[in-house]
Amino acid sequence: MRNFKITLEYDGTRYAGWQAQKSKFPTIQETIEKVLRKIIREDIKLIASGRTDAGVHAAAQIANFKTDSQISREKLQRALNGLLPEDLSVIKIEEAGSDFHSRFTAKSKIYRYTILNRPYRSAFLKNSAFFYPYPLDLGLMRKEARALLGKHDFKAFCASASSAKDTMRTIKKIAIKKKSGLIAIDIEADGFLYNMVRNIVGTLIEIGRGRFSAGSMAKIICSKSRELSGPNVPARGLTLLKVKY
Amino acid sequence: MRNFKITLEYDGTRYAGWQAQKSKFPTIQETIEKVLRKIIREDIKLIASGRTDAGVHAAAQIANFKTDSQISREKLQRALNGLLPEDLSVIKIEEAGSDFHSRFTAKSKIYRYTILNRPYRSAFLKNSAFFYPYPLDLGLMRKEARALLGKHDFKAFCASASSAKDTMRTIKKIAIKKKSGLIAIDIEADGFLYNMVRNIVGTLIEIGRGRFSAGSMAKIICSKSRELSGPNVPARGLTLLKVKY
Repeated sequence: MRNFKITLEYDGTRYAGWQAQKSKFPTIQETIEKVLRKIIREDIKLIASGRTDAGVHAAAQIANFKTDSQISREKLQRALNGLLPEDLSVIKIEEAGSDFHSRFTAKSKIYRYTILNRPYRSAFLKNSAFFYPYPLDLGLMRKEARALLGKHDFKAFCASASSAKDTMRTIKKIAIKKKSGLIAIDIEADGFLYNMVRNIVGTLIEIGRGRFSAGSMAKIICSKSRELSGPNVPARGLTLLKVKY
Repeated sequence: MRNFKITLEYDGTRYAGWQAQKSKFPTIQETIEKVLRKIIREDIKLIASGRTDAGVHAAAQIANFKTDSQISREKLQRALNGLLPEDLSVIKIEEAGSDFHSRFTAKSKIYRYTILNRPYRSAFLKNSAFFYPYPLDLGLMRKEARALLGKHDFKAFCASASSAKDTMRTIKKIAIKKKSGLIAIDIEADGFLYNMVRNIVGTLIEIGRGRFSAGSMAKIICSKSRELSGPNVPARGLTLLKVKY
């Protein structure tokens, strides 16, 4: 069987996420699987590197599926982009080895959270950035963010609805940049808990705003308590940037 | 009376343009006027530098209105952004002299047309760029575009529905740039005819694709015939970038 590796770009605004239990909104997985079945005429199962939540975007989500079809990569990409809705785009299709699994083989993922940090909002970024008009101390945010690096129990940043038993994760990199009113917070980790990026960013905003004192990030991690971390910032600011294998 | 000069950013996707005769879609002008009347409690008339068509965006549209209100600029901006829909944003408010008129005082305007020129579309740019997957010869497009510079009768690029009697305009600058799959065509002129930018861009695309021979741009201008110029490209790729006074 052939194993197709697909790179996807999507605007998550009108989706219930990659996969959803019950929702009246479409999911990204079912939208693509439906089109794949039309093209290939097989019962395809598409596996992603991870589930993105409702409203979360992807610049390069990785998914794979196995098939007996002899369709060429070029033809498959053209057919997919021809039939998929405009907010879902296939950037690249490669043929991977049979042992490639977009989730299990992934070494790390990079998420970007985008904050529009200026006094007035943007008409163009309404679905792709979180508008936060108050001044933020980026130096302080960068300093406190260092406590997140390395292997920790990130239970304090895990949504209570999560069923995760193992809440240990390794954050490899955090970068906080600002350019013409846009703050980008990039976090690379070997894996992410449910709502982890959004809770970390919510905590960083509280720090940048001066509401949490110095050293609070380390204390929050140690506490393992969701009660102490910052609010969950909106999904629209979050984008899956890259998956590393 | 005070004369407020407002800089506006808007995503034109769901609007019938700045001003429309009959339409079931809202116009940008009426949307802002309605909110202004709520804030200022006067019958405000908002004048723009020019009418943008349905689906056309603005990064910095300029509009002005006169009022007896004593409201501060800061308070007015906050109130407007608080009440306007998310795809309409007030970037700046200044107080202008009583003789400032956003349309009559304007010296020139710059429009940008954005083409996504790569084999696959983008989920993020569906409303802000025209997806054109075929190769384009930018060198040829730049060379032919030179014929547009200066004062000409641009009737060949004017929609037949237009009532303009004087079709003479002066194009001051044209720049065609490409960066990571995105072509930006910037045109600065003292004024634009109805659909002029979109017809010029449609003609440039035909040239870049090799469908029109060398020297055709000059011939099309001379012909003054809309029959000879290229197709009208979609509104979603067009943005009013700047108005100069």
